Amino acid sequence: VKAVAASARRVVHVAVDESGYDAHIGAGVLAELGTRIMALAPLGPVVIVTNPTVRALYGAAVESSLAGCGIGARIVEIPDGEQYKTLETLELIFDAALSSGADRSSVIVALGGGVVGDLAGFAAASLFRGVRLYMVPTTLLAQVDSSVGGKTGVNRPHGKNLVGAFHQPRGVLADTSTLATLSDREYRAGLAEVVKYGVILDKDLFDLLERESERVLARDEALLVEIVERCIAIKARVVERDEREAGLRRLLNFGHTVGHAIEKVTGYTRFLHGEAVAMGMVAAAKLSEQLGACESGVASRIERLLQALELPATISGDLGRQSLVDAVAFDKKVSGDKVIFVVVERIGHCVQREIDRGLIATAL
Amino acid sequence: VKAVAASARRVVHVAVDESGYDAHIGAGVLAELGTRIMALAPLGPVVIVTNPTVRALYGAAVESSLAGCGIGARIVEIPDGEQYKTLETLELIFDAALSSGADRSSVIVALGGGVVGDLAGFAAASLFRGVRLYMVPTTLLAQVDSSVGGKTGVNRPHGKNLVGAFHQPRGVLADTSTLATLSDREYRAGLAEVVKYGVILDKDLFDLLERESERVLARDEALLVEIVERCIAIKARVVERDEREAGLRRLLNFGHTVGHAIEKVTGYTRFLHGEAVAMGMVAAAKLSEQLGACESGVASRIERLLQALELPATISGDLGRQSLVDAVAFDKKVSGDKVIFVVVERIGHCVQREIDRGLIATAL
Repeated sequence: VKAVAASARRVVHVAVDESGYDAHIGAGVLAELGTRIMALAPLGPVVIVTNPTVRALYGAAVESSLAGCGIGARIVEIPDGEQYKTLETLELIFDAALSSGADRSSVIVALGGGVVGDLAGFAAASLFRGVRLYMVPTTLLAQVDSSVGGKTGVNRPHGKNLVGAFHQPRGVLADTSTLATLSDREYRAGLAEVVKYGVILDKDLFDLLERESERVLARDEALLVEIVERCIAIKARVVERDEREAGLRRLLNFGHTVGHAIEKVTGYTRFLHGEAVAMGMVAAAKLSEQLGACESGVASRIERLLQALELPATISGDLGRQSLVDAVAFDKKVSGDKVIFVVVERIGHCVQREIDRGLIATAL
Repeated sequence: VKAVAASARRVVHVAVDESGYDAHIGAGVLAELGTRIMALAPLGPVVIVTNPTVRALYGAAVESSLAGCGIGARIVEIPDGEQYKTLETLELIFDAALSSGADRSSVIVALGGGVVGDLAGFAAASLFRGVRLYMVPTTLLAQVDSSVGGKTGVNRPHGKNLVGAFHQPRGVLADTSTLATLSDREYRAGLAEVVKYGVILDKDLFDLLERESERVLARDEALLVEIVERCIAIKARVVERDEREAGLRRLLNFGHTVGHAIEKVTGYTRFLHGEAVAMGMVAAAKLSEQLGACESGVASRIERLLQALELPATISGDLGRQSLVDAVAFDKKVSGDKVIFVVVERIGHCVQREIDRGLIATAL
């Protein structure tokens, strides 16, 4: 196991369930996977869910880390892309796991981005009514958001993540050196969720992103470790207080109600999730201004930061306002004609409001 | 709402989660469904999952009970039979629920037997990562077993119930008058699970079944209320202490390791679940005798009771011993080469033992 310099390594504890779990953040922590899994003492085989791109980059390192600890692994490749976040892909994982002799003691490892994590997580939640899950997120989005918190799921024709489970992982390895291989577009999409944490709960983070936007875009390694740690720590504190999204956790949906609608209307192919969230955040901030929740200028400050990070901030006119409004109606945060919407009061402070769905039409 | 005589009505509280839930047992309690659902205050539509046979018998009564309380319902018909306990059928439920405007406040009602309950339950566990579930079991098997305890799931080609979730219902209405419409075969299959409760935890129940086997077969209504109440009460006490099947709950699998193997080898079509469990219980009792766990004669006493209840007790020679042994290996209670097997020490008292899979070959 390659040692990771103590200075470049952070651990965030997530206190959910009885024992909670640790997220390890740093350049090179991927090499520790064997040790981490060994600590879980699986009897059955370890099932690694990944996609062809990620496997080509890290498959060998992961297998050798596990083999070095005497752990046999079965790699399950699933196709890459949001459009494959389906029950059909889930069946691939179930059947590969069952065919390789997985049992209740087995561990499923999610090696990849958000799609891999959501699918592997739902598979782990459901196989034998629940086996253990270990998250190895390799995209910025997955490191700062989806790998922590236990949300798993698949899409339906009616919308995103409409079917799934809450299933907390037993640990997270966020290796920031994997971020170097992301395309610019995918990396920036992850930054949208980082901006979100700043807006909802951490003004200092927002200020840091404004101040250091160039170093952020250049993927400065030390800065990345700090940013990922900060985001995971925020998410951990939110999830600890509200695991099942009964209240506080909804703040994490800032920008997502409209973001999901944008993704849906464009068939989940035109925009990356983070890009849709970027546009959704500006729409949500504009609506907050219209509602008088915050002073004017907040939306344009968020818009400027997103633009500095080379993210889309304006909803393209060709999307069709009415189809966006209709798509919002199918969002799972909607109850009846009311939408629980996250409004910004000031940078670093958001609140939830139950608003009329019609008001969203105005903001779009 | 038609009143149910207080004397003919029992309530068993199941103390799981924060608030727990009640199982209402009696002839005619189905008419109370509207009142029960109203108490859950759903905003979205109620989704009733059922099959064509059960719908023809009780669909109108259920809809009128709900309508009488001002509750709109969408009935989703799924095909009848264990072979339809699949992810594909689950999709039918998801899409019917989503198309009818279900939201997080919606309630899914399972109206039918074990297949309906397992599918509706898994759908409720997964839709929006969890909506509320209400159980209206209309078979003896479902009333005494699957409607209480929160196990849900679907089959895979590798075996039964390999994919699912733990999801407790918000209530159970076990209307014993619905048992009058069951075929003799289905009714008797349910009795196998009743015998199981007697063997594992309730000698008095076992004695009662021996003494009153003719009244049991004649479906004496007062006796049925007593039997169903007694079984639900046993199951409730077990599930309360071990919701996730970490220990005690495994006792409920008495007869099921071999029973599942029999079902699998025969393609889930030749035997009803209860019939397979009946044969599995005798095999388990014989193995218990061979292990010296109980004195000889216990297996034949169980066999005699099952025969008096007109259930199969002997595994037909044409099933193939080796294929049964192989099927046991895929049972989800298996870890490595060991099987956690429930052995009987005496009628009314069973224990778990980790035994070598090879020993099962001997017993078959």
